[in-house]
Amino acid sequence: MGEFELIEHIKHLAVSPEGVLGIGDDCAVLPQNGDLETLVSTDMLMEGVHFLLDDIRPYQLGWKSIAVNISDIAAMGGTPCGSFLSMALPPSFTSEKIEAFLEGYIHLSRRLGCPLLGGDTVSSIGPLCINVTVTGTCKKGISRKRSSALPGDGIYVSGTLGDSAAGLKCILDRCKHSSASPAAQAPDSGQVCPDDYSYLISRHYQPVPRVELGVRLASDPSVHAMMDISDGLASDLPHIIEASHAGASIDCSLIPMSLQFKRFCEQRGLDPLELSLCGGEDYELLFTAGDQFSPAGLPVTRIGTITDARVLEWEGQNRIFEGYRHF
Amino acid sequence: MGEFELIEHIKHLAVSPEGVLGIGDDCAVLPQNGDLETLVSTDMLMEGVHFLLDDIRPYQLGWKSIAVNISDIAAMGGTPCGSFLSMALPPSFTSEKIEAFLEGYIHLSRRLGCPLLGGDTVSSIGPLCINVTVTGTCKKGISRKRSSALPGDGIYVSGTLGDSAAGLKCILDRCKHSSASPAAQAPDSGQVCPDDYSYLISRHYQPVPRVELGVRLASDPSVHAMMDISDGLASDLPHIIEASHAGASIDCSLIPMSLQFKRFCEQRGLDPLELSLCGGEDYELLFTAGDQFSPAGLPVTRIGTITDARVLEWEGQNRIFEGYRHF
Repeated sequence: MGEFELIEHIKHLAVSPEGVLGIGDDCAVLPQNGDLETLVSTDMLMEGVHFLLDDIRPYQLGWKSIAVNISDIAAMGGTPCGSFLSMALPPSFTSEKIEAFLEGYIHLSRRLGCPLLGGDTVSSIGPLCINVTVTGTCKKGISRKRSSALPGDGIYVSGTLGDSAAGLKCILDRCKHSSASPAAQAPDSGQVCPDDYSYLISRHYQPVPRVELGVRLASDPSVHAMMDISDGLASDLPHIIEASHAGASIDCSLIPMSLQFKRFCEQRGLDPLELSLCGGEDYELLFTAGDQFSPAGLPVTRIGTITDARVLEWEGQNRIFEGYRHF
Repeated sequence: MGEFELIEHIKHLAVSPEGVLGIGDDCAVLPQNGDLETLVSTDMLMEGVHFLLDDIRPYQLGWKSIAVNISDIAAMGGTPCGSFLSMALPPSFTSEKIEAFLEGYIHLSRRLGCPLLGGDTVSSIGPLCINVTVTGTCKKGISRKRSSALPGDGIYVSGTLGDSAAGLKCILDRCKHSSASPAAQAPDSGQVCPDDYSYLISRHYQPVPRVELGVRLASDPSVHAMMDISDGLASDLPHIIEASHAGASIDCSLIPMSLQFKRFCEQRGLDPLELSLCGGEDYELLFTAGDQFSPAGLPVTRIGTITDARVLEWEGQNRIFEGYRHF
């Protein structure tokens, strides 16, 4: 079973009670007795699959571990309330590394008002494994699901896409070169400007989830479907159109890209469109909104339109883009 | 850092906001706007540390994975609402095994009204690792903490202690013998009655958390401190007396033991008191209650009294009992 087949199998087994949103969106949504709903998101990060300890500092790993979960809460329009951290710790992940990990974790959790409230620690005979669960709340009925896109809606993304994927390329190149002899270094390895390099790597290691923007968008009734971009737009947009029984047309010339990202692609001879659409881990918001929506003053860009054609069209591109899959 | 030092370090870093109960009890407790509170508990189970895949069937592992978390919700007097399952899956944990695991998981989750609402799956290059988070609710202000024991309170436990530890011994013996030559088999290996054997193993693999009893006890104002027994009474009772700044005196002759457990200990020449106090994974409730408490009709036994002496006394025993530690 691949990742998506397994999720389908679990969905089939796990029937949610009425009034509860279970498997299939960024978060689960549980009713409360008052005017709020509880949101819950959980993610597991595994050494060797999601990160290599040679490539990421413990501080950055701590930061990223909680960031990816808070991003799921943000994508529903929720406010995070607290987090729960489980760690399977191999002997090589020393006390010093645990402290640095916790420093990064606590740093972002304080910044976003999401205190660490519990967890579990076990010793591991294998790789480091981290599981984070974040709970949040939102006003009853306003959480934004993937299934609410309507034909005619504009399709928007926050920030810029591809920076994280470019950052990962910088990191992997650095590793490749540091383990090769100097003579074997790629001729282009020194050409990325150090500031661009730092920016792109930081976007990969220390994403800042769009909590404020998510809350703002969820309070606007013209905003319909919403999710975060974790596997790349080319992989995540299909979730919205499938869940909404709709199609989409994307104007590829409108995909927002940072200057740093564009320079990086040019210097490396990479296709910026391919990297920005198919690279994962942007942790930006993807949402659809009706005509009444005004993006003025918000860090968002309209990139296309929801259609009723049940296809995903990349305007002006005679090709298909595919996102990242973990399995 | 050992397990408890690490938890102390994290507690120091993770300051809970006012009105929120964070690290240090069975669950976190978060306020809701209505008349309820949200409870959250999380546990990680690691192959090679908490279980061996040669010893436990996937169905049993699925059952146990959710049982241990629901037990934490029960220990606060809460009702479980939903669970979140993350799995790091090595290639050896085949689709067939995943299905059996989910069958056991879903079986107990349905029985206790705690649907599977979300999770994450990743591929693992190392051991199988499972993380479960359970959310629950209870009426505002009634969740039972470890810190509420009062001198003079009776100390009670539910059910019988030691069955799970005896079950584990049965399992480990079976493994030892199946890998040894027949001539090397211990002379006593065939003496445990098959029904006792099944009972004890089932108590180890398929504990049933005390949800109904926990809710019933939390509704009784004479019940003060409460927790579940996961590391053995000798390890868990100190958490209550430390948190309550009190002491305890236990009448060892009152420790409730099943007939199956007593027969097992006799046949194996084991000390039943040692095994029932120090063996872990009972998942029974441990609580303290004032004079007004009536245990009539409840599956609970009074085993001692909370004192103001700041020591834990095992009456009539000139020895110290120590519980199980995972690190």
